[in-house]
Amino acid sequence: MTKVFLKKKIQNRVLLGHPWIFGNEVGQVEGDVTAGDIVDVFTHTGMFVGRGYINPQSQILVRLLTRDRQEQVNDAFFLHRLRKAWEYRQKIGYVENCRLVFGEADELPALIIDKFNDYLVIQTLALGMDRWKPAIVAALEEIFSPKGIYERNDVPVRELEGLPQQKGFLSAPFDTNIILNENGLRFHVDIENGQKTGYFLDQQDNRRAIQHIVKGADVLEAFCYTGTFSCHAGHYGAKSVLGLDISEHAVATARRNAELNNLQDTCKFMAVNAFDQLKQWTKEDKKFDVVILDPPAFTKSRENIQKAITGYKEINLRGMKLLKPGGFLVTASCTNLVDPSLFLEIIDMAAKDAKKKLRQVTFMTQAQDHPILWNIENTTYLKFLIVEVQ
Amino acid sequence: MTKVFLKKKIQNRVLLGHPWIFGNEVGQVEGDVTAGDIVDVFTHTGMFVGRGYINPQSQILVRLLTRDRQEQVNDAFFLHRLRKAWEYRQKIGYVENCRLVFGEADELPALIIDKFNDYLVIQTLALGMDRWKPAIVAALEEIFSPKGIYERNDVPVRELEGLPQQKGFLSAPFDTNIILNENGLRFHVDIENGQKTGYFLDQQDNRRAIQHIVKGADVLEAFCYTGTFSCHAGHYGAKSVLGLDISEHAVATARRNAELNNLQDTCKFMAVNAFDQLKQWTKEDKKFDVVILDPPAFTKSRENIQKAITGYKEINLRGMKLLKPGGFLVTASCTNLVDPSLFLEIIDMAAKDAKKKLRQVTFMTQAQDHPILWNIENTTYLKFLIVEVQ
Repeated sequence: MTKVFLKKKIQNRVLLGHPWIFGNEVGQVEGDVTAGDIVDVFTHTGMFVGRGYINPQSQILVRLLTRDRQEQVNDAFFLHRLRKAWEYRQKIGYVENCRLVFGEADELPALIIDKFNDYLVIQTLALGMDRWKPAIVAALEEIFSPKGIYERNDVPVRELEGLPQQKGFLSAPFDTNIILNENGLRFHVDIENGQKTGYFLDQQDNRRAIQHIVKGADVLEAFCYTGTFSCHAGHYGAKSVLGLDISEHAVATARRNAELNNLQDTCKFMAVNAFDQLKQWTKEDKKFDVVILDPPAFTKSRENIQKAITGYKEINLRGMKLLKPGGFLVTASCTNLVDPSLFLEIIDMAAKDAKKKLRQVTFMTQAQDHPILWNIENTTYLKFLIVEVQ
Repeated sequence: MTKVFLKKKIQNRVLLGHPWIFGNEVGQVEGDVTAGDIVDVFTHTGMFVGRGYINPQSQILVRLLTRDRQEQVNDAFFLHRLRKAWEYRQKIGYVENCRLVFGEADELPALIIDKFNDYLVIQTLALGMDRWKPAIVAALEEIFSPKGIYERNDVPVRELEGLPQQKGFLSAPFDTNIILNENGLRFHVDIENGQKTGYFLDQQDNRRAIQHIVKGADVLEAFCYTGTFSCHAGHYGAKSVLGLDISEHAVATARRNAELNNLQDTCKFMAVNAFDQLKQWTKEDKKFDVVILDPPAFTKSRENIQKAITGYKEINLRGMKLLKPGGFLVTASCTNLVDPSLFLEIIDMAAKDAKKKLRQVTFMTQAQDHPILWNIENTTYLKFLIVEVQ
């Protein structure tokens, strides 16, 4: 097997548990390098570090799959890891729908698998993982006997690995428009064309967190996508709910979701630019009891972080201004580029500009089926905050 | 009214919202100073900052009650503030039992009120607040018509204010042994002799967070006090639960709580020193599926912070060693002297020493009826963490 030796100086991060090895951290390589192959990694002194897949085309040269020298990477390896991932979700009570595999946090770097009741959607985001797709699919068939498996590899990040963007069936074809149950509600999920894997499971606990504050309230949700927070608000007793999203298609789905839960009289949706609409309503001095903001990432690169900060600050400032005194702002950020403390700072800045006083009701992360490893920053990515605004 | 003028340099913290004014932040005082009196506070240029109570005997010379010059501090003020505090708890869904007033976070510095169904327990921890006890009691009578009000002012911190330690009825006498409902369980509360106000409401949501992980598990709880986490574990389907506490009296109450919930066959308790017992069992290689650690503060002063760090690290290290691979550590810290990031660092250090790998399942603070103000550090005090330990 090909051997990769780390440089002396920069091996500490890896020794402390991080599975990524960047090209510039490698001193020498002994043996052939074929993209996607399994290689062994050693310190500069020859101590075994771990075993993983290599891709010279990627900035991340090697991603470790195991640190146990006895553990071979083969079909059985993937069956074992997937069983372990499933066992964990069962233990923490995420069974019907869950993120079954959360990449690095499940020791399966660059692999994402979401389970929507009897359906599984997978993403293999690195070449070395993509190669094992047949083994992964076989393991999923064995563990779950699912009604269907679908690949949502239509993501640009694959191109950094020299992989094509693609999507399609990894099982016999099935109707990709499914319905899932969440917190006593039902939602349409478009596995083929929905965002990411089709549904954002990471907010499933946070949606429940609005239960009390929306009771009898006039609720505004900006960036509502397919209206899941909005429908929860309606379900939990909001007087009125207005959801905004720029996408006509998302708004159409949101309306169908409201109907599916018999909430069409309470929950209304508008296909508009949320920035413009919030600005307009601030001018008109329109007021709500609860404002929910669950915007997209605003940026995907560290270079544009200032753009994200500006975006978050602006919408949160507008959200605060649209609240009655003592109203609640429910606000989220889904990019790992903005860490929790920076996110709170942004909200604090927005409050100062809006001349508002905040009291934190709750601060949460993504749901527990997306576990967090402290030494891998990008496993903490979702921030979810509720504040009372005076 | 007596006027207090801030020094130029150190008024910023106060202007940004902090209600405490230390003696060394004050430039001059115009008028008589009688401990407990209401005074007006100004910047060095004479701009009105706020109104609060003064106590020259305390390091915290003034605690602000309002920043609204029109707002008078009188009986009606306390009725209004208490109504507001109650309204907030109702909005967030904490009605039957709640921390009704959480001091600074409810703009009522040094006042704590816990509501245990029809009973109220109060603490007035500063002289200026203590003076208003009759107004506070009258307001509570008006809002709640409670079955009883009790004062648990038997706390050393009152002596820093020149106040005596005392406890007793603030209403007609009543049986201070009551029962409260929490998460579908029932617990004995000893209002007169229990710790603090008699019951720790701040963990009420966190107790629910162990629901899934304890199913079918052998659970150990150290520092179990009256066994509330232990009973929750039994209620949620643990195979066995063992609670340890150094106090015979606490253990006796824990046993009564288990009986009250018909969990006496599952939940057992031992009056032992948890440090010693954990050490002993580590030697014997005893193993559990879940270990719960909810220790006391270990220190009450910043000078002894290292003692707290050492204590937390030691028990968490022992807890980790007592877990089967893939078991869960449930660990808390209730002192505001150890901030959230320091707490996580301590757990991380313990893991490194124990040669364990951790995955964060959830990280929470105190329940939402103890709201957090970002500019007042001591309002974030409870840390509650669940990690999977490999």
